[in-house]
Amino acid sequence: MADPHPNTRLEAFCDGVFAIALTLLIIDIKVPTAEGIGSTRELWLALKRLGPSIFAFILSFAVILITWVNHHRFFRQVNKSSPSFVYANGLLLLTVVFMPFPTAMLGEYLMTDHAAPAVVTYNAVTVVQAIAWILVARSARRLTKDEKAAALIRDGNRNGYMAVVVYSLLALLAFWFPLTIAIVTTLLWAYWLVFSLQAE
Amino acid sequence: MADPHPNTRLEAFCDGVFAIALTLLIIDIKVPTAEGIGSTRELWLALKRLGPSIFAFILSFAVILITWVNHHRFFRQVNKSSPSFVYANGLLLLTVVFMPFPTAMLGEYLMTDHAAPAVVTYNAVTVVQAIAWILVARSARRLTKDEKAAALIRDGNRNGYMAVVVYSLLALLAFWFPLTIAIVTTLLWAYWLVFSLQAE
Amino acid sequence: MADPHPNTRLEAFCDGVFAIALTLLIIDIKVPTAEGIGSTRELWLALKRLGPSIFAFILSFAVILITWVNHHRFFRQVNKSSPSFVYANGLLLLTVVFMPFPTAMLGEYLMTDHAAPAVVTYNAVTVVQAIAWILVARSARRLTKDEKAAALIRDGNRNGYMAVVVYSLLALLAFWFPLTIAIVTTLLWAYWLVFSLQAE
Amino acid sequence: MADPHPNTRLEAFCDGVFAIALTLLIIDIKVPTAEGIGSTRELWLALKRLGPSIFAFILSFAVILITWVNHHRFFRQVNKSSPSFVYANGLLLLTVVFMPFPTAMLGEYLMTDHAAPAVVTYNAVTVVQAIAWILVARSARRLTKDEKAAALIRDGNRNGYMAVVVYSLLALLAFWFPLTIAIVTTLLWAYWLVFSLQAE
Repeated sequence: MADPHPNTRLEAFCDGVFAIALTLLIIDIKVPTAEGIGSTRELWLALKRLGPSIFAFILSFAVILITWVNHHRFFRQVNKSSPSFVYANGLLLLTVVFMPFPTAMLGEYLMTDHAAPAVVTYNAVTVVQAIAWILVARSARRLTKDEKAAALIRDGNRNGYMAVVVYSLLALLAFWFPLTIAIVTTLLWAYWLVFSLQAE
Repeated sequence: MADPHPNTRLEAFCDGVFAIALTLLIIDIKVPTAEGIGSTRELWLALKRLGPSIFAFILSFAVILITWVNHHRFFRQVNKSSPSFVYANGLLLLTVVFMPFPTAMLGEYLMTDHAAPAVVTYNAVTVVQAIAWILVARSARRLTKDEKAAALIRDGNRNGYMAVVVYSLLALLAFWFPLTIAIVTTLLWAYWLVFSLQAE
Repeated sequence: MADPHPNTRLEAFCDGVFAIALTLLIIDIKVPTAEGIGSTRELWLALKRLGPSIFAFILSFAVILITWVNHHRFFRQVNKSSPSFVYANGLLLLTVVFMPFPTAMLGEYLMTDHAAPAVVTYNAVTVVQAIAWILVARSARRLTKDEKAAALIRDGNRNGYMAVVVYSLLALLAFWFPLTIAIVTTLLWAYWLVFSLQAE
Repeated sequence: MADPHPNTRLEAFCDGVFAIALTLLIIDIKVPTAEGIGSTRELWLALKRLGPSIFAFILSFAVILITWVNHHRFFRQVNKSSPSFVYANGLLLLTVVFMPFPTAMLGEYLMTDHAAPAVVTYNAVTVVQAIAWILVARSARRLTKDEKAAALIRDGNRNGYMAVVVYSLLALLAFWFPLTIAIVTTLLWAYWLVFSLQAE
């Protein structure tokens, strides 16, 4: 089979995983069960208590969407494939697929006295994701379409090392200041979103 | 990589999200557990109590399907991409992915005395969706394939502002008349379905 | 955008829905919780009690797979689109997406004294699916690629009316003889599988 | 419709199923509910108890990813289709879709006294998967693009018979030595991963 572009199926597979991980986030926002609700006012209060879950849902939705956009841009520079490239992508997908777990942790514990494990877990996953990006970029070195693309990827890789350091620091500080770190993490991703919006 | 059409991967990604959001609606129709069932008659009654859930499932299935058809038609007018277009689409997808939550709310509370929060939430999500459509249309202004396509999108945008006003009004009125508004909402989408069937 | 084939995106969307509906079937096979298990022997017995759920999973997997194969064959005859064709496909997808519910019903109640509602529901969904096929075929009348394709679809349509009658009869008889009808239904789909294997 | 490559839609369908099965693995890693947690220390301990679930998640993620890579490589040798090829692929997908169940079993029971049923089930599914691969390879005999591809598939088929024997033996031994077999299974898949990384 004369495949015009060897990454078409890998791209489609990754897109599928991104799309499903994004959509699965919703199943952790649980509707309050009718048994526990005595009045309409109580239902409004129960909805209000879902606040942290909805915040976590929107944050993770944005994180996965930004990651997908970066993935999309990255793949435009690459026009060959290799086994190590495929498996490095696999590791990246593993961290994306894992996102619903720290998201649900955040929703359940952010506004309680036990927020630290939730925020640490959330940032730890982004550390592993940053490492996966480095492996993807390294394995793509000889797969770029031209020299300009190779330079772009080398630049991105440098930011990748930076990201590992920053997210590790955030994960570490979250042991003591979970709420502050949750806010910093959110602002960081908001910044990434704005940055990504102005790119190209 | 010489991409013949820059939106192919964005389209495929959106389609994936639409398809999964549609399919996930089913997981909120819970089978009555065998423990609570003493006779076959009781099981029939338990199935009958699923009525509101099945109604909400069909309504949201129709809403997402119509949104997908509109999305499909919209993308045929566009043959370029931009970061703001991608993220405006991301916001639209967020409202689609969120649909299972108000759907489950409707299934749980529509036939109770506490229907208001469910119907308000449902219509509030459609308000955000209408706003997302406006942002998608605005960001697509310079991405259309020709002048006729641009005019089509400008017309659609005008309807978009109308939709925001109408759905906001419905969401507001649902605080006092939830059941009536649920019926009006259903009829409105039924009208959209018939309208969409006769289009083209 | 010069779309070479107007149904590419509809096909991809339908494939996504088929693939997800197929995969979601697994979430109704619940692992026995460790709390209720006192010995390894008890765990084996708990696994054995999952028998009806696993049977229902395999049956519905086969039903959706056969439906996908038929859908795939059908679409090869069609090379145009229309709004009514898209929405008739939507109704077909609704019945596919709904499958996990009667499947879980079958798993929960097949081996109890209350099997009738489960088997009736299962066959009722196949009745609606057969009706959806008729609507898909009718709406595709003027969309076929040539006269031979149109004749093929007319023939299939005749079988469709037959299917509505047969499944309705099975659904009706399941009120009194649920187990027998479950076996007949299984054999019928096994026959369809063998028939489909020898086709082409 | 002049389909340039008859397996495009089958490939896309399989990719969808692989991607969803991969992503659904996460829903069996349950967040500890806030009610049972009295102190932050207790939450850390609850997270630690998720160890087996996270191990099982990563193992199954790797198994499905490797299977997808093999599937991808296999399909590059094939450029025709047949009903038996489609249904043999269907059986392979059934074993992939089933993976979340033995994965959840492993997570729930691996570190308890009742690990045997979990490990036996896990390896039994891989036995059925190896059989499905043999059927896929057999049905693809006359569908290969050239003689070299046919030879490649015949070689793979020989390994397939080997795999059935080895996995059956592992499943059998897991009745008595579940933990040892869990470790051997993990090492075996780690070996496959390294082997697959060096291929091509």
